[in-house]
Amino acid sequence: MSTLPGALDTASVRDYLLGLQARIVAALEQAGGDALRADDWQRPEGGGGMSRLIEGGRLFERGAVLFSHVSGTRLPPSASAHRPELAGRSWQAMGVSMVLHPRNPYVPTTHMNVRLFHALARPGHDESDAFWFGGGLDLTPCYAFEEDARHFHGVCRDALAPFGADYYPRYKRWCDEYFFLKHRNEARGIGGVFYDDLCEPGFDTSFALTRAVGDCLLGAYLPIVERRSNTPYGERERAFQAYRRGRYVEFNLVYDRGTLFGLQSGGRTESILLSMPPTANWRYDYQPGPDTPEGRLQSFLAPRDWV
Amino acid sequence: MSTLPGALDTASVRDYLLGLQARIVAALEQAGGDALRADDWQRPEGGGGMSRLIEGGRLFERGAVLFSHVSGTRLPPSASAHRPELAGRSWQAMGVSMVLHPRNPYVPTTHMNVRLFHALARPGHDESDAFWFGGGLDLTPCYAFEEDARHFHGVCRDALAPFGADYYPRYKRWCDEYFFLKHRNEARGIGGVFYDDLCEPGFDTSFALTRAVGDCLLGAYLPIVERRSNTPYGERERAFQAYRRGRYVEFNLVYDRGTLFGLQSGGRTESILLSMPPTANWRYDYQPGPDTPEGRLQSFLAPRDWV
Repeated sequence: MSTLPGALDTASVRDYLLGLQARIVAALEQAGGDALRADDWQRPEGGGGMSRLIEGGRLFERGAVLFSHVSGTRLPPSASAHRPELAGRSWQAMGVSMVLHPRNPYVPTTHMNVRLFHALARPGHDESDAFWFGGGLDLTPCYAFEEDARHFHGVCRDALAPFGADYYPRYKRWCDEYFFLKHRNEARGIGGVFYDDLCEPGFDTSFALTRAVGDCLLGAYLPIVERRSNTPYGERERAFQAYRRGRYVEFNLVYDRGTLFGLQSGGRTESILLSMPPTANWRYDYQPGPDTPEGRLQSFLAPRDWV
Repeated sequence: MSTLPGALDTASVRDYLLGLQARIVAALEQAGGDALRADDWQRPEGGGGMSRLIEGGRLFERGAVLFSHVSGTRLPPSASAHRPELAGRSWQAMGVSMVLHPRNPYVPTTHMNVRLFHALARPGHDESDAFWFGGGLDLTPCYAFEEDARHFHGVCRDALAPFGADYYPRYKRWCDEYFFLKHRNEARGIGGVFYDDLCEPGFDTSFALTRAVGDCLLGAYLPIVERRSNTPYGERERAFQAYRRGRYVEFNLVYDRGTLFGLQSGGRTESILLSMPPTANWRYDYQPGPDTPEGRLQSFLAPRDWV
């Protein structure tokens, strides 16, 4: 365990994140029956990560649960465009990030991320540590099951309820706005919750809320996996899944700020692109009939109140 | 044929582009034995396009030869960031854009584009029409054949030679710099030529150079198609092709200015994304042995002088 200087108890966040990764990995290995592969790495400029990933599994065709903790001695101006007063400070960033692409097209893809950014006060300056938490989880189905969407959002709502009734609706809307493909006029999935820049309630409450988000992933997702993973499927469903995965690729490479910032700032490409599906297809002007299961996805993805 | 006001003979450019599209389509249909599908469209704000495309063909698994000619009455400031004096003028843009993804992994993917942008002088203002041509062609192989790279670059060099000996080396370097995946430290393919903002030699010479670029595509590409399209391949080569197509997706969605500007400015998504391959795969930390045909691609892609 590395303890870094600063007034905030970021070592506890690191401990929490490592525990969260371990719990999720254990649960996924039990659910899928395949071990996740470990790949740890160091960042020359400071810090590193522990990647846990699977490819070609029975349940998960591709997926990863990544822990990273990176740090630097001088925050580049590009990383603090909205807070120019932080440029030049020592900083650290830590988080767990997860994407799962199941093999069965009836089991939705899911994504979860929790993270802390921390810029340290400089000794001798009249300033304090700056920090913010961010995170969220969301669900991307190929086939429309209202019951799954209601369950997923219900768990998200319950997780945030202890912090105030307005968090879930705000973070749900933020998620709908963030995971949106403008060029398709289409949501990436049925959403969930998303937040960033959380510091206003203070470090302890922001951390507690972030724990609630991380901790709710397994309860939000695994019951859906259990419910759908034995549904028979054939070539038709696999073809539609590959087509929908193209949308996932489009979102992540065109819009996702974390992906783009990572790729452009010299992040670890193979880790960042573990969010990519194992395969993706493109097909010109594909319009499934409105009364087919594939055609019903379109209206299902339109943001709405699920709980 | 639409003739727009202005001192420049842009109607001739339109005629050339329509003829170029027709010639390329006819040659591809003859080479592949499959007809291209026609899909014409109108743009509500002005102009439209004629798409010619193929999916699931014997020779081309996915490909398109697109003509578009769009116009507007007020150039948005975002479109003229480098030439703010053009904001608010009437404008038109026309071009032919082509991407071909062959089925056989030994036949390289190719891309060609020629285009004209034209901002009209406003009546009663002391100003003249502004225009610039752009374009290029490049080759993206999965397997390394020096003979193919030398042929392709030789045709490009010969096409530009009548305009001066420095055009080919400059545009070759520009191509190497443009089609580069920074996050992979890797070129998209073996290059070709690329240029933009061409106006300095005057309208007639810039147009003539652009014709030379468009006209050379078939001679640069079809001999390679003929040489490679009967090479037997199996699952190994198809898997590597799908993996390499992932790089094509990464380049086009993360870096390609035309793609990103089109998607972000409300362009016609289905046309823009005809550059996507039919399928693409991602695989964690894939490192083919250096002595395999797949491993040899890496060093083959490092920019070098081919002619």
